[in-house]
Amino acid sequence: MQVITTVQKMQEIAQTLKQSKEKVGFVPTMGYLHEGHTTLMDEARTNNDVVITSIFVNPLQFGPNEDFDKYPRDEARDQQIAEKHGVDYLFLPNVEEMYPRLSGISMDVTSRVDVLCGKSRPGHFAGVVTVLTKLFHLTQPDHVYFGSKDAQQVAVVDQLIKDLNFPVSLHVVPTVREEDGLAKSSRNVYLSTQERAEAPALFQSLSLAQQKMFDGEKNPAIIVNEVKNYIQSHTSGMIDYVELLTFPTLELVAEIDQDVIVAVAVQFEKARLIDNVIISTDGSIDNVVL
Amino acid sequence: MQVITTVQKMQEIAQTLKQSKEKVGFVPTMGYLHEGHTTLMDEARTNNDVVITSIFVNPLQFGPNEDFDKYPRDEARDQQIAEKHGVDYLFLPNVEEMYPRLSGISMDVTSRVDVLCGKSRPGHFAGVVTVLTKLFHLTQPDHVYFGSKDAQQVAVVDQLIKDLNFPVSLHVVPTVREEDGLAKSSRNVYLSTQERAEAPALFQSLSLAQQKMFDGEKNPAIIVNEVKNYIQSHTSGMIDYVELLTFPTLELVAEIDQDVIVAVAVQFEKARLIDNVIISTDGSIDNVVL
Repeated sequence: MQVITTVQKMQEIAQTLKQSKEKVGFVPTMGYLHEGHTTLMDEARTNNDVVITSIFVNPLQFGPNEDFDKYPRDEARDQQIAEKHGVDYLFLPNVEEMYPRLSGISMDVTSRVDVLCGKSRPGHFAGVVTVLTKLFHLTQPDHVYFGSKDAQQVAVVDQLIKDLNFPVSLHVVPTVREEDGLAKSSRNVYLSTQERAEAPALFQSLSLAQQKMFDGEKNPAIIVNEVKNYIQSHTSGMIDYVELLTFPTLELVAEIDQDVIVAVAVQFEKARLIDNVIISTDGSIDNVVL
Repeated sequence: MQVITTVQKMQEIAQTLKQSKEKVGFVPTMGYLHEGHTTLMDEARTNNDVVITSIFVNPLQFGPNEDFDKYPRDEARDQQIAEKHGVDYLFLPNVEEMYPRLSGISMDVTSRVDVLCGKSRPGHFAGVVTVLTKLFHLTQPDHVYFGSKDAQQVAVVDQLIKDLNFPVSLHVVPTVREEDGLAKSSRNVYLSTQERAEAPALFQSLSLAQQKMFDGEKNPAIIVNEVKNYIQSHTSGMIDYVELLTFPTLELVAEIDQDVIVAVAVQFEKARLIDNVIISTDGSIDNVVL
């Protein structure tokens, strides 16, 4: 595995790879790698000749009240993990390399952002699409990989690629779960013993939603209420949101007649957990067609 | 020459070209081709294996008071001209192909726009960078060609490429002039006989600015005044602006100590003419280093 720290070197390598006819898979991350990331790397490894991963904690996607400086970092460990999972090139630029001066071009996201987690993070996705535009140009991948755990990010990246005609295919990798169904997250360690025992209720509530839809329920309000009731009666957490929206367009519907996402965010004492399922009209989960 | 009208076909061809190791030169235009455009095509032809030209009148860069519908079009003639100048692929998408739905991603230009012609065209360059981002992704060129006549556009494209790390080199082709120095423009035909006789004064005033700088003048105000006086005493036109700015950053300076642009816009009865020279510190013209 080759570690690259400069924009110029990354651009040179990408240029050479592009002309080599080798398929390039790219996994952008903010580091502090866990199984969610390595699943993306494994998927990229299986389906490409070359795998590039980036680790860059992007200041542009942090709000003024979100602590960019305290975001966890462990580059030495990350490098070992990336190498073990078959990454060929690890791109590790610093902030100065990525943003050498105040940019004269700004990007914003005007759709798919005022719902779910985006509601409480104004400007977050503007930062995400800006850094991804730069990273896609620097690595010139054929295939890019994102986890469906961050479903809103998937929806925004889908929009970025389509609306700006990036020559890139988006691949969505299903959420990795513990045996009891809890979505893997680095935040799970902040749960108390009791909260950890309750936390599988999130996925159970989503499975309930799926069952309802499979049984023919078309009314979003009924499903959202069922999910809320289930979480409230099975956990001590406070519901931040339960939303049922079209996917990937993330719009409210009066009647379910297309692919939808059911997404939840629940605040426990020291951890806010999110989870979601994407359900196609036949009731199957996570068959994301973008 | 192959004419391509769909985004999908253009993307397929670009993908194949990218893997062929052939150098691709790209000349984006809004059609109604004249010598300014063909000079760009000739330059691209000389320095690349493959030349792609696009003709697309981009609604996004027209203001509400600028008549998108009346922009001159002549596709049959344009195709003949492009073919004659060695274009391999002519990309001719319609608006529906380029903007099939309301975009969820917006781009804006926050620097280099509040001067020169940009002052009176709010939103114009936002439309320019959006369509160029899409066209660069669709054609994946190694080299792109722009004319220095639209110097502000050059400055904005330079910023677009650098700030978003496009894997593309920008080449600036000097303004094509009539024998008497008048910059070629499709608008010149709207000049009366007397105006046409006066019009070379624009380039003469810029040459005067160059001479002053070559002689050691470092004060922008003195040069701007000389240019204004020259135009006023030699033409019946009304000066819209005369500006001396750093290039390509387009900022005001108190003292000339780097590459600058001197740009003029003059309103004649039925035609508004623009012209500029980019002058390096040694007084030489049009040696644009970006």
